[in-house]
Amino acid sequence: MVVKIDDVARLAGVSKTTVSRVLNNRGYLSDATIKKVHEAMESLNYQPNAVARQLFKKETKLVGLIFPTVDNPFFGQLVAALEKRLFDAGFKVLIGNSMNDPKKEETYLKELISNQVDGLIVGAQNRGIEEYHNTNLPVVAIDRVMNEDIPVIASDNYMGGKLATELLINSGAKNIINTDGPVNLETPAHRRREAYEDVMKEHRLVPHTHIVDFSWDIEKKRSAVEEMFVEYPEVDGVFATNDMDAALIWQVATSLGCQIPKDLKIVGYDGANSTRILLPELTTIEQPVEQMAKVAVKTLVSRIKGDRNIPLEQIIPVKVWNGKSV
Amino acid sequence: MVVKIDDVARLAGVSKTTVSRVLNNRGYLSDATIKKVHEAMESLNYQPNAVARQLFKKETKLVGLIFPTVDNPFFGQLVAALEKRLFDAGFKVLIGNSMNDPKKEETYLKELISNQVDGLIVGAQNRGIEEYHNTNLPVVAIDRVMNEDIPVIASDNYMGGKLATELLINSGAKNIINTDGPVNLETPAHRRREAYEDVMKEHRLVPHTHIVDFSWDIEKKRSAVEEMFVEYPEVDGVFATNDMDAALIWQVATSLGCQIPKDLKIVGYDGANSTRILLPELTTIEQPVEQMAKVAVKTLVSRIKGDRNIPLEQIIPVKVWNGKSV
Repeated sequence: MVVKIDDVARLAGVSKTTVSRVLNNRGYLSDATIKKVHEAMESLNYQPNAVARQLFKKETKLVGLIFPTVDNPFFGQLVAALEKRLFDAGFKVLIGNSMNDPKKEETYLKELISNQVDGLIVGAQNRGIEEYHNTNLPVVAIDRVMNEDIPVIASDNYMGGKLATELLINSGAKNIINTDGPVNLETPAHRRREAYEDVMKEHRLVPHTHIVDFSWDIEKKRSAVEEMFVEYPEVDGVFATNDMDAALIWQVATSLGCQIPKDLKIVGYDGANSTRILLPELTTIEQPVEQMAKVAVKTLVSRIKGDRNIPLEQIIPVKVWNGKSV
Repeated sequence: MVVKIDDVARLAGVSKTTVSRVLNNRGYLSDATIKKVHEAMESLNYQPNAVARQLFKKETKLVGLIFPTVDNPFFGQLVAALEKRLFDAGFKVLIGNSMNDPKKEETYLKELISNQVDGLIVGAQNRGIEEYHNTNLPVVAIDRVMNEDIPVIASDNYMGGKLATELLINSGAKNIINTDGPVNLETPAHRRREAYEDVMKEHRLVPHTHIVDFSWDIEKKRSAVEEMFVEYPEVDGVFATNDMDAALIWQVATSLGCQIPKDLKIVGYDGANSTRILLPELTTIEQPVEQMAKVAVKTLVSRIKGDRNIPLEQIIPVKVWNGKSV
């Protein structure tokens, strides 16, 4: 059965006009009325026709971006690229840095979903996926699995992990550690680790993943890296899941008297603009940031226009940045 | 003579109610009406009473940030810090990256000023300062001179330039080049260069500034740095006005066979989080980013509340990050 606006109005005990006003965020509405209508829509799982809604709704021409933090070369470059393309498509950009703050992500979502934005592009790392369900707001995810209704854009994480591990093995490393965040987060980035494990096993080598959580502060990360060298004194290669961790591993290894790449070979992941200027010696897997931004914005704009024929996952090729660390 | 709302209404040929609606962005208004009222306000230089306006206006609880780009360690960290503090103060954040695009900055300004945001924090590098004049919108600038009505927050640029130059001289450098953007931009950051020139002259050394424009792409910057080494083959010290330039100078010098710091000593400026992880060996002047963000948000919130007793310039101390490049 298709739920209609009349059903929502009846259940909420308000007029059709009021439901329409709530949907389109127009005119004076009390918080109590908005709440009643939202509850009725939720309990009926009401999906307003996207095209019809488009015709009547008050567009804000705002898109929300929810990412861990722009204080990071990869996310900084990604948000800059998204903002540029969204501006060209006629949208202004609201940002929310949600790192270390699942409550902040939740707050953002609630406020943004209540019709303040026309769509969202998200790549946040916290839990809180539930809030993304059952919303009529167009959402596109970058490197994060959301639900069956939200398209995901990702770099070819599996290929990246494979290339990184093969670079290390081919340059002679045998005791190769992978650093990664905890597995309890659903992200396609974990395919980097899967590829690492597959390639290691293929070469009859033993895979070990050492946890370095992206959300930890620098001192906690440094301790985790120091522990890694204590736990695995025989380590001669590291595939770090991001370049900031790779740089930290390089620092700690050097302070322990290791020479890179003679004693320890390192491959990172991301290859962001700033990183390639500040640490060009780091061999890394370069994410196609510009391309990811382009595809993400194109996908979101299609969604906003009501297009439902959107691939669930779009994977974009990576390439190797040849530094001097393997 | 104090201009009143009646004067604006009379000149625009509309009712007082209409002027009030335009001011508060409420109710239906045609573009023509909005234009007429804005023109009348401009030609009369109408300044609505901040407190009175506050009582009636529709707050958006949005603040706009206009900076060159978050694809840069310093601006990425600064925008992240501003966003966090604005969120805690109850505001969401609109970002506009205006690098290389004065037209984009102008568009942002026009759209944001027309009451979509409660205030602006700007640090953009383009021209277009005129648009910031005669607006009733609260604006705070970071490291940029705007006009006599807009408070500026800056790191102690003069002290930073002095510290950097003294570090180079005390470690034995004599032929010290400064890299900086063109002088036609009014920014307190030029005090870094003034201090460099003062300290050089104090030590009877000849100052030379070589232009590396922040807005150039990486290849153009690299060429400028290569030219610097051709033009000044005797260079044994560089004070770069930002760390990205310092890193590029380091790369080019190394490719020319220079050893750092033996043959060439380098001091940068910024000392952002990511830079200190990716290139900790670079000695640099660390900007107090967290403190700058705190002061900027506090100042903007005071302005939004109608406080007029705000210092025109707030300067925050810098410190030296001791790397290994001097």
